[in-house]
Amino acid sequence: MTAAASRKILALNAFGDGDAARLDPETAALVARRRRTFGPTSVLFYERPLHVARGEGVWLETADGTRYLDVYNNVPSVGHCNPRVVRAVAEQAATLNIHTRYLYDVVHTYAERLLATFPERDDYRAVFTCTGSESNDVALRLAAIATGRSGFVVTEGAYHGNTTAVAEVSPSSRPGKPLAPHVRAIPAPLAGDAAAAERFTADLEAAIASLKASGHGFAGLLVDTIFSSDGVAAEPAGFLKPAADAAHAAGGLVIADEVQPGFGRTGAHMWGFQRHGITPDVVTMGKPMGNGIPVGGVVAREALLQGFADSVGYFNTFGGNPVASAAALAVLDEIEERGLTAQAGAVGRHLLAGLESLKSRHPAIRAARGAGLYLGVEFADDAGRPDAGLTSRVINGLRDRRILIGAAGIYGAVLKIRPPLVFETSHADRLLEALDETLAAEG
Amino acid sequence: MTAAASRKILALNAFGDGDAARLDPETAALVARRRRTFGPTSVLFYERPLHVARGEGVWLETADGTRYLDVYNNVPSVGHCNPRVVRAVAEQAATLNIHTRYLYDVVHTYAERLLATFPERDDYRAVFTCTGSESNDVALRLAAIATGRSGFVVTEGAYHGNTTAVAEVSPSSRPGKPLAPHVRAIPAPLAGDAAAAERFTADLEAAIASLKASGHGFAGLLVDTIFSSDGVAAEPAGFLKPAADAAHAAGGLVIADEVQPGFGRTGAHMWGFQRHGITPDVVTMGKPMGNGIPVGGVVAREALLQGFADSVGYFNTFGGNPVASAAALAVLDEIEERGLTAQAGAVGRHLLAGLESLKSRHPAIRAARGAGLYLGVEFADDAGRPDAGLTSRVINGLRDRRILIGAAGIYGAVLKIRPPLVFETSHADRLLEALDETLAAEG
Repeated sequence: MTAAASRKILALNAFGDGDAARLDPETAALVARRRRTFGPTSVLFYERPLHVARGEGVWLETADGTRYLDVYNNVPSVGHCNPRVVRAVAEQAATLNIHTRYLYDVVHTYAERLLATFPERDDYRAVFTCTGSESNDVALRLAAIATGRSGFVVTEGAYHGNTTAVAEVSPSSRPGKPLAPHVRAIPAPLAGDAAAAERFTADLEAAIASLKASGHGFAGLLVDTIFSSDGVAAEPAGFLKPAADAAHAAGGLVIADEVQPGFGRTGAHMWGFQRHGITPDVVTMGKPMGNGIPVGGVVAREALLQGFADSVGYFNTFGGNPVASAAALAVLDEIEERGLTAQAGAVGRHLLAGLESLKSRHPAIRAARGAGLYLGVEFADDAGRPDAGLTSRVINGLRDRRILIGAAGIYGAVLKIRPPLVFETSHADRLLEALDETLAAEG
Repeated sequence: MTAAASRKILALNAFGDGDAARLDPETAALVARRRRTFGPTSVLFYERPLHVARGEGVWLETADGTRYLDVYNNVPSVGHCNPRVVRAVAEQAATLNIHTRYLYDVVHTYAERLLATFPERDDYRAVFTCTGSESNDVALRLAAIATGRSGFVVTEGAYHGNTTAVAEVSPSSRPGKPLAPHVRAIPAPLAGDAAAAERFTADLEAAIASLKASGHGFAGLLVDTIFSSDGVAAEPAGFLKPAADAAHAAGGLVIADEVQPGFGRTGAHMWGFQRHGITPDVVTMGKPMGNGIPVGGVVAREALLQGFADSVGYFNTFGGNPVASAAALAVLDEIEERGLTAQAGAVGRHLLAGLESLKSRHPAIRAARGAGLYLGVEFADDAGRPDAGLTSRVINGLRDRRILIGAAGIYGAVLKIRPPLVFETSHADRLLEALDETLAAEG
């Protein structure tokens, strides 16, 4: 049932063939060009897709000059077309762009700054990749090599990336399909109470026992520390600690997928795992790292990297190249100098309070939860069942009100709030007002 | 023996711990920073690594102001810091950089231009990724899904990328290790004669039979169409045709890995496979596509992409983003408007003739071969055995003469010539002269 339901994640808010008649001629022409060039692989958002022409800060502007408040995109974390990042990229691209088999400064300057955000261990080292998918692909091998085992535990709505190996540990990418034999999926503790946290650790222990019994053994626990695609799970802070302890006790690694929660998104900390007081063996990152310039990374204990180097080795042609490093360094400068982590915390608290207030007036809101600027709003019908239909109507209703947003969760019934980190209180108020109007129009 | 020998590819020209004493203080300090940030995973080139500070055209300049002629780097294909690419990246980064779930023009403009370089089929469609590794990872799944089988045939020195799945079909990444059970490796036809070409097809047929007997079945033939890491195989043109026919006759797909030979490198054609008169089912690309901005791609028959979309789906956050697309479009503009494919052919012919002339004076040169600006110079000792030691000394001798170059081949005894495509006859002459001097100093 879970797997079938998760099909909704993919289908939700997707443009379909039947929608073509609704398009204006210019958009229809672009959709036709897209069909001739991309073919069938790429999903397009919205019944009436957006033809976007410009971006700035928290705003995306379509070709017809309409501005939309962007509550969806977590890649341009320090703002669309952030001038500091643009300048860093332009200057570095004009000076030097090679690979890490030569020496150059900027990648090490960046790596030093990045590693300094991990006070938990002094034996962490960095491997640079181009995408979060590549980072998680490396992480899986680090765990398999270190433990000599192949089994992984993930959450049932998890998405960790698109490579062959990573898609196998991403249940949300395999709607309607059984899990791979070396993978066990457990529910994310969405309820946010102590009982859910306890159940999460118990489910993990049962999954580990199942992997051991199957002969795959337990190589590691791989979790997105804000549980983005499961529908956002943040409370009670610290709930990952007993789970991480259980994973370590079973001889497995703890891999924190920080592709979505990392780089200040969850408010109080640079990394989502810090909210839980755990020390992962491997940390993976991607999306916001270069504000849209492709760059990803793996931070791991040196001993794990040594085992990997002795086994298959690793080289990534573009990974950590000077342009990617310069972009990532500018992003870190922006986060630190502008205090964006604290801002995400403050604006997120304001937003969460506003959502709680809306909940009291709109019974369709079953729950509002999250941390910093990664929040989820869960919709339910009168019988308390997840309401993906309403979620979809809300997404389109907000589009009509010039706000871009998406959905998550295994039932596709969680509105996903993860704007650029430069999102301010006034933007939060605009979102709350538009959500209020949209839900009122439903009732 | 092959696998053990291929360890040399990784080790060749690598900086080792024992080399640290030779470094000047500034380079030693940077190497120490690298050890503290990267740890053990990344191989650094040269006994005395280069601290590079600037790039321009075919030149790399170190921090001390020394200029090196770059004969190694095929990523900055239209020249280091190409002004048109730099401008395109800077302008697009300042305007819009999002993902392909919204509509925007530049990715489709690029895709149309890219697909127009494939006159072989009108049902080819494009999927954009960030790296050649991601592209080959997609290609493997396209073949597995289309055929329902898991077996692949590659060449014994092949390198196709760094993801878990792609490393399994890259024998050169697995020195000393047995091949994965679903993989068969056959020798590349390096001899360049009709007998070698016939043997290649016969070896492929035997490998297919072995995969069928093993139960894996034959999903596809995956080849780099210039056989870069095998040590370069280009002659006789057309030798891939009977092999591709045999692959198709066995119900498998033909995947042309154009990460290295593509985008005009082999001289007469945009794509290496065109030299052989074949029509691949899937074409993969990466490295030079964005001149260093991470971008890769897969071009495949629409029916294959439909099967993929129906199975697991695919979305790549950064793949085909506006900045990557703008960079790739500028690269294509440069290749086409400046006639770089024809230039690669002309300069490559001049270089190959010069290498043949050197061969007559230096018996250590066993063979010179290749197409366009992907050439290999094979070194042998007096007994005719591959000479990796000499190759290494030549690489360092050329560095002393301010030329950067690398090695390939399963014995690490092939000098790999693959400069930026803007390499001119005068640069070729400089390389020939320095190689002549270096070999004379050996004798």
